[in-house]
Amino acid sequence: MGAAKQEQAAQAQGGFLDDVYGKPGHLIRRAQQIAVAIFIEECRHLELTPVQYAVLVACRDAPGIDATRVSEVIAYDRSTLGGVLERLEERGRIERRPAAGDRRAKQLFLTEAGARLLHDAEPFVRRAQERIVQPLSTADRDELMRLLGDLVELNNEHSRVPLKRAP
Amino acid sequence: MGAAKQEQAAQAQGGFLDDVYGKPGHLIRRAQQIAVAIFIEECRHLELTPVQYAVLVACRDAPGIDATRVSEVIAYDRSTLGGVLERLEERGRIERRPAAGDRRAKQLFLTEAGARLLHDAEPFVRRAQERIVQPLSTADRDELMRLLGDLVELNNEHSRVPLKRAP
Repeated sequence: MGAAKQEQAAQAQGGFLDDVYGKPGHLIRRAQQIAVAIFIEECRHLELTPVQYAVLVACRDAPGIDATRVSEVIAYDRSTLGGVLERLEERGRIERRPAAGDRRAKQLFLTEAGARLLHDAEPFVRRAQERIVQPLSTADRDELMRLLGDLVELNNEHSRVPLKRAP
Repeated sequence: MGAAKQEQAAQAQGGFLDDVYGKPGHLIRRAQQIAVAIFIEECRHLELTPVQYAVLVACRDAPGIDATRVSEVIAYDRSTLGGVLERLEERGRIERRPAAGDRRAKQLFLTEAGARLLHDAEPFVRRAQERIVQPLSTADRDELMRLLGDLVELNNEHSRVPLKRAP
């Protein structure tokens, strides 16, 4: 039996890849792929990625924040974050200054260019977020946000990088 | 004003990182981080990752499938998939055989060890999926699956690797 025939036979038994498609993990991964793709598409002209955006917002909302805190408040792996911060600094979007008490610790600040970028990005980020949930009715969007919010909140400790909100 | 003071002041204005936390993209990314972490935790003793699991299921359900098709049916980037297939082959979980007509094309098959692994993994994969949605009530789980299903289905073409189901 040829491969195509075998594939057809497997499918005829019902459930080709059902063990994957039917699982929450698959749907969540697909949603994440889609969300990232839409964000990057909308913000391409600004060369802005989702994690860069989150870092810039953290630097704006908490001027002088350090890298470890950024990692905690945006729930992004500390080691991967290093490269993100480097690129943002190279492109003049953030500044790292030695902290007053401890010169090894670096405080992060948005530069003027960074602030402008964040400002310019807002309509595109908003549009991206709208597009992500656009297939759903307004009621369903609210419902999805509520359910994901609960899932994420109550599972927080189970992620590799639990989110630690500001106190 | 010190950094801590500035952070407090920014927070007092309300909305520390609200521009991130309130967005669908953030919740979806968090859900994905959590889903992967739980899967890896449950399947650690089998050294099985979510994408490896999906590849093994594809090889079981469609014996002789080629890498491009695997990429399509599990919606996983073709270039990243290369490394995954290599590791699975090195560890004797799949086999790549030249196709009958076109010797450059490789057909993928589950080995006996791969089939056993998949069989052994089932209860742990199931447990991982249960834990991902465990914070939600049964009704809310169904609702979340429905909403994510709609979002993913209707946004399919917007992801970098659209899922192409079997015909």
